[in-house]
Amino acid sequence: MAIEGHSGIDGQGGGAEILCIGTELLLGNILNGNARWLAEELAALGIAHYRQTVVGDNSERLRHAVLEAAGRCELLICTGGLGPTPDDLTTATLADAFGAPLEERPEVIETIATRLAQRNRALDPGSRKQALLPRGAAVLPNPTGTAPGMIWSPRPGFSLLTFPGVPSEMQAMWRATAVPWLRQQPFSRGVLRSRTLRFWGIGEGRLADRVADLLALDNPTVAPYAGAGEVTLRLTARGADADTAEALLAPVDQELRQRLGHHCFGADDASLASVVLELLRQRGQTLAVAESCTGGGIGAALAAVPGASDVFLGGVIAYANSVKQGLLQVPGEDLARHGAVSDAVALAMAEGVRRCTGADWGVAVTGIAGPGGGSVDKPVGLVHIGLSGPGGSQSEGVRFGESRERRWIQTLTVGEALNRLRLELTG
Amino acid sequence: MAIEGHSGIDGQGGGAEILCIGTELLLGNILNGNARWLAEELAALGIAHYRQTVVGDNSERLRHAVLEAAGRCELLICTGGLGPTPDDLTTATLADAFGAPLEERPEVIETIATRLAQRNRALDPGSRKQALLPRGAAVLPNPTGTAPGMIWSPRPGFSLLTFPGVPSEMQAMWRATAVPWLRQQPFSRGVLRSRTLRFWGIGEGRLADRVADLLALDNPTVAPYAGAGEVTLRLTARGADADTAEALLAPVDQELRQRLGHHCFGADDASLASVVLELLRQRGQTLAVAESCTGGGIGAALAAVPGASDVFLGGVIAYANSVKQGLLQVPGEDLARHGAVSDAVALAMAEGVRRCTGADWGVAVTGIAGPGGGSVDKPVGLVHIGLSGPGGSQSEGVRFGESRERRWIQTLTVGEALNRLRLELTG
Repeated sequence: MAIEGHSGIDGQGGGAEILCIGTELLLGNILNGNARWLAEELAALGIAHYRQTVVGDNSERLRHAVLEAAGRCELLICTGGLGPTPDDLTTATLADAFGAPLEERPEVIETIATRLAQRNRALDPGSRKQALLPRGAAVLPNPTGTAPGMIWSPRPGFSLLTFPGVPSEMQAMWRATAVPWLRQQPFSRGVLRSRTLRFWGIGEGRLADRVADLLALDNPTVAPYAGAGEVTLRLTARGADADTAEALLAPVDQELRQRLGHHCFGADDASLASVVLELLRQRGQTLAVAESCTGGGIGAALAAVPGASDVFLGGVIAYANSVKQGLLQVPGEDLARHGAVSDAVALAMAEGVRRCTGADWGVAVTGIAGPGGGSVDKPVGLVHIGLSGPGGSQSEGVRFGESRERRWIQTLTVGEALNRLRLELTG
Repeated sequence: MAIEGHSGIDGQGGGAEILCIGTELLLGNILNGNARWLAEELAALGIAHYRQTVVGDNSERLRHAVLEAAGRCELLICTGGLGPTPDDLTTATLADAFGAPLEERPEVIETIATRLAQRNRALDPGSRKQALLPRGAAVLPNPTGTAPGMIWSPRPGFSLLTFPGVPSEMQAMWRATAVPWLRQQPFSRGVLRSRTLRFWGIGEGRLADRVADLLALDNPTVAPYAGAGEVTLRLTARGADADTAEALLAPVDQELRQRLGHHCFGADDASLASVVLELLRQRGQTLAVAESCTGGGIGAALAAVPGASDVFLGGVIAYANSVKQGLLQVPGEDLARHGAVSDAVALAMAEGVRRCTGADWGVAVTGIAGPGGGSVDKPVGLVHIGLSGPGGSQSEGVRFGESRERRWIQTLTVGEALNRLRLELTG
């Protein structure tokens, strides 16, 4: 609900929409990174944004989508279809939809000709097409490529901006010309500020129950989102300026952290790995991992954090039992008696990796990621997590669910292991 | 233009649309990977697909978007908003839009209760809400999570399917139930067959130049896509039946593989890790890894492949030099003289991990992932990759580019190391 509640406009109308044009999006050939990038930019500008649409390179369908949007929103951001090929029909279709003639812009022709000359190419009919804009539209210059966009208000209370689909060109045009223009417009109302609180060890449903009253707030809004094991709450406040918006965020942020206690592990760019590394850094302690079913995933998560090397020493990937015995000195008797997926083995792995690396802390995981290898006693999704530190060792079994896929179980195991170490370090 | 030309339907009407529901998409918090995945699946099923829409968790706007789509298309695929929180309002909104009452489905309650019990959790009101479906709708079972979807034809000639927004759940439901159902429907006209060829070690531009004539084909179409290090070509053929479509694919597939030689490492679900594991399995040989800058990423990629354990033994994460020396017996003299990022150390790591695990093959990486730690001689992005096998050992330095981000360098290092082993194994 986050951004929805903030608009000054009720019902269906108002705000901005994004329209991405390109058959490659309908075929699933590429991810729609432009929509995501523009969505973040609109939020940062405080422009409410209610809908994204994708249509192919088809004039009739594009025409319908544009006219529908013109009846609903104040601002339409279009990407794609500005190139030189016959497939690129955005400008001509928009002109036709609003009954405006196309006019050749001499200043655009000149820029395009100069750019092409730099690459030893002559002005061809396709490039010439790119200099045609509807009467009344302003040129939205393209500092890096050939195709310019436009800023056009074909109807009172409705403006549209067009950009090429190439992300780098679109972004350069957005920053240089669109942002300054948008800041002057009446639909830029104040400033939005967002923060994402991150949680582990609590499901989306249970979390939502505990903060139900805050999920109903209007400003800031609080919206839950569930990833793989991690649940996040996105807080978004609107204010006349950044300070006002931040001041609205702060008390709700504090209240959420207080209510959810140790489940909250950080905010924004924090990860379980970065939080654990920082806790150990503050203590001047080091960490090593002993991984069976994750095959190196815990280590990779730690190594993904810049500057991990002052805390993270490395460890042993003990996928085969022979490696558990050889490098980690897990007793063969434990393996035979309890099986590789057991508290005894997880403990021995955690202690073994501390011994062989000299780390202050050892984290170990051994489990059944599936799809094969499960039994009634030890089903797929069962993982034992061992922790060993200066104060002693412990291990526990966790069940991530028999129906889960291998990668899901591996991802949750990585997070759960790091979270157990976090809880141990924060008491 | 590819998919546009294939439809039997003219003008605005017919075909499928995708509707993704979630304010997090409007805020730009996440990429719309679901839309892309579904678009590829629809293309593979031969179902024409004309529009994608994103709306937030807002009942009124969702209602409008659904009713508009119902007036335009035959099939609407909805994702998101099926969770247990008050924000999740997809099912109730759809029921209301088409004037159908919600009914509790006992069989769904039972499944949800069983799943929750496996995780030691009780049935709460939010979960109970997930068992409500509009009268007349069929349950679309969720084999891995709690929220089921539905298959519903609220009006003649218009059907809708709902899925949770969690990609793994959505994909499992799609494959198990939606695909068989869709194959029976009249809008599945003819058959599309797709194949994705996967390449490593060649850029998208160079690859496209070498197959420019094939990229211009009409049936099958061939579309390039660049990921992180990997480049793919998607071949899509349309035929009256599967055999006809496959017969169109085969010669182009063969021609592409012939032209691009060893750059092509596999097709469809193959990964560099799965290909390397299979090559070693055929030889009855085993593999261990010694990882510095990737911190376990190569091991995690191998462990992500089901059944890896008969080939992959594990290895050593030698992030700190002390671990390189202690567990892998890298000579302190090599570290002092050549530095940790050097051929001498990569070689010693690869040989060391074979020795300490007993594996037939050892792969080692040591490099500078950045953002810190670079120098003029050894810039960020420099990685040395060592290979050791029954026939001897070798090492080489690779530069992934100083301007690249840490994760990009780590991801490319994982792929490059596996690819070097692949090339060694295939001669």
